[in-house]
Amino acid sequence: MATTLTSTDSSFRSWLTSVGPEINAALAGAVAENSLPSAPKRLREAMAHALLSGGKRIRPALSLLAAEACGSDRARAMPGAVACEMIHAYSLVHDDLPCMDDDTLRRGKPTTHVTFGEATAVLAGDALQTLAFEILAQQSSAALAVEQIQLLTAASGASGMVGGQQMDMDGEGQQLSLEAILQMHAGKTGALLGTSILLGVASAGADLTPWRSYAASIGRLFQISDDVLDATRSTAELGKTAGKDLAADKSTVVGALGLDGARALMAEEVQNALNAVAKMNPVQHHAELADLPVFLGTRHA
Amino acid sequence: MATTLTSTDSSFRSWLTSVGPEINAALAGAVAENSLPSAPKRLREAMAHALLSGGKRIRPALSLLAAEACGSDRARAMPGAVACEMIHAYSLVHDDLPCMDDDTLRRGKPTTHVTFGEATAVLAGDALQTLAFEILAQQSSAALAVEQIQLLTAASGASGMVGGQQMDMDGEGQQLSLEAILQMHAGKTGALLGTSILLGVASAGADLTPWRSYAASIGRLFQISDDVLDATRSTAELGKTAGKDLAADKSTVVGALGLDGARALMAEEVQNALNAVAKMNPVQHHAELADLPVFLGTRHA
Repeated sequence: MATTLTSTDSSFRSWLTSVGPEINAALAGAVAENSLPSAPKRLREAMAHALLSGGKRIRPALSLLAAEACGSDRARAMPGAVACEMIHAYSLVHDDLPCMDDDTLRRGKPTTHVTFGEATAVLAGDALQTLAFEILAQQSSAALAVEQIQLLTAASGASGMVGGQQMDMDGEGQQLSLEAILQMHAGKTGALLGTSILLGVASAGADLTPWRSYAASIGRLFQISDDVLDATRSTAELGKTAGKDLAADKSTVVGALGLDGARALMAEEVQNALNAVAKMNPVQHHAELADLPVFLGTRHA
Repeated sequence: MATTLTSTDSSFRSWLTSVGPEINAALAGAVAENSLPSAPKRLREAMAHALLSGGKRIRPALSLLAAEACGSDRARAMPGAVACEMIHAYSLVHDDLPCMDDDTLRRGKPTTHVTFGEATAVLAGDALQTLAFEILAQQSSAALAVEQIQLLTAASGASGMVGGQQMDMDGEGQQLSLEAILQMHAGKTGALLGTSILLGVASAGADLTPWRSYAASIGRLFQISDDVLDATRSTAELGKTAGKDLAADKSTVVGALGLDGARALMAEEVQNALNAVAKMNPVQHHAELADLPVFLGTRHA
C-alpha cells in the first residue's frame, strides 16, 4: 500500500486511459443511428451530443475495474457501465438548463440546450434515462438485469441523485450544516459514483457486501474533491464555469470547513477507502483500487 | 358484438369507474412518504401533484383489464399499471414546461411547474420516470420485471413517446402528411397506451402476439379522438387549454382530413379493434374489450 500512496504514476489514471477508447466506442454505439433507427434525427443527435462530448468516463471505468477485480470481464460489465454514464449524462443536460443551473459551457463545449434548444434538451435527457434502463433490461440474464436496475434506480431517483439535486436547490442562499451538505452530496453525486462500482461487482455475480463501504467512500471523496476543484480552479482549466457554487450561493464542504478542512476530510476518506480495499480481497487490480482514492484526493492538489 | 356497439351503457366506462379507486390508492401509495422516506419533501410533493391531480387512469385500467382478460389478477398487474401511469405523468410534467408547450392548466389544476417552479418540475418528472422502472424491478419475478421494462422502455423512449414528442415539435409550423402525423401519434401517445394493455397481458404470463394488433388500434384510436377532442371542446370541458394544437400550429389528423374525415378514420379503427377482439379469445371481459374502441371513438361525439 505504501508504494501506491507515494507513487507519482497514478495507476488509476493509467486504467482510465487504457479503457477510455473501449468505453467511448460502446457509448457511441448505443446512440448510433443503427441502434436507434426509429428515433427522430434531431433527438438522437442531441442525445449523442450529451453523451459523447468528452468527459473522463470515471463511472464506466469504475464498473469495468470492479468487474475485473471480481474475476469477471469487461464485456459483461459494459451494459452497466454504459447505463451508468447515460444516467450521469442525462442529469448534466437537465442540470445545465436555464431553469436549473443555467450553464452554457460543459467540458469546454456548448451545453445541449445551447446547441439544440431547451425543449429538445429536456427530451434528450428524458430519452437517455429511458435508454439506460432499456440497455440493462436487454441483457441475457434477467436476474443480473433486475439487480442492476434496482441498484441504478435507487442511486439515481428521488432518494438518490435527483433527490440530492433537489436538496442542493432547496439549500441555496443558506449555509447548510456539514451533515446536511454531506447528505446532499451523497445523493447528488456519491450514490451514482459508488453505484458504478457496485454495477461492475454485480455483473461479475459477486457479493456486493464487502464492496459497499469502499463504494460509499469513493462517492464521498469524489464530491468533496469536486467542491475543492470548483473553489480553486479557473474556468479554462475546468472546461466548465468555475466558482459557480459560490456564485449560486450554494453550500459546499469548502464553505463549511474551509479549504484546509475540506482537504483534511478528503485525507480521512482516502484512509477509509484504503482500509476497505484491504478487506475486499480483489482477485486483481489491487493497485488501481488502492490508487483510486489517492487519485481522487490529489487531482486538485 | 352488435349489442355492444349499440349499447348506450358503456361497459368500459363502468370498468374505469370500478377500478379507479384501487388504482388511485396504488398510485398514492407509491409516492407516499413511507414509500420514499429519503426523498426531499418538496420533490415528493411535486411528484405526488403530478401523479395524483386527477386523470382518467385509462392506462392502468387497461393493464388491469387485460390481465383479468388473460385469466390473471389485478394485484399481479398493478406494478405495470402504476409504472405506466408514472411514465404518462412524467411526460405531462415535462410537456407542460414553458420551454415545451407552456401550459399552465392540466385537468383543471395548475401544472406542476406553476405550483412548484420549473426546476422542481423537471426533477419531479425525472424522478417519476426512475420510480416507474424501480417499481417494475422490485417484482418477485425477474423474468416478468425484465419483460415489462423492455415493453415500457420501447414505448416511452427515443423510438416511442419521447421520439413522438420530438417529431411533434419538429413539425410545428408545417402541415405534415397524414402518414407523418400517424407516425408521430404512434410514438407520442399510441405506443404507451397500447403498451399499457401489453403490460397487463405480460403480467398474466400470456402470449403478447394476439394482443398486439388490438393494442395498436387502441393506441391510434386514442390519439385520433384526442385530436377531435382538441378541435371541438372548450377549455372548461377539457380541463386543459383547448385549441392549443391549432394555436401552436401543430399538424393534427383533423387538420389533415377535416373533422368528418377524422371521424371516418376513427370508425375504421374501431372496426379494426373489434376484429382483433374476435381473435384474442379473452377468458373474460369480452364486453369491456369490445366496448373500449367504441368508448374511445364516441367520447367526443
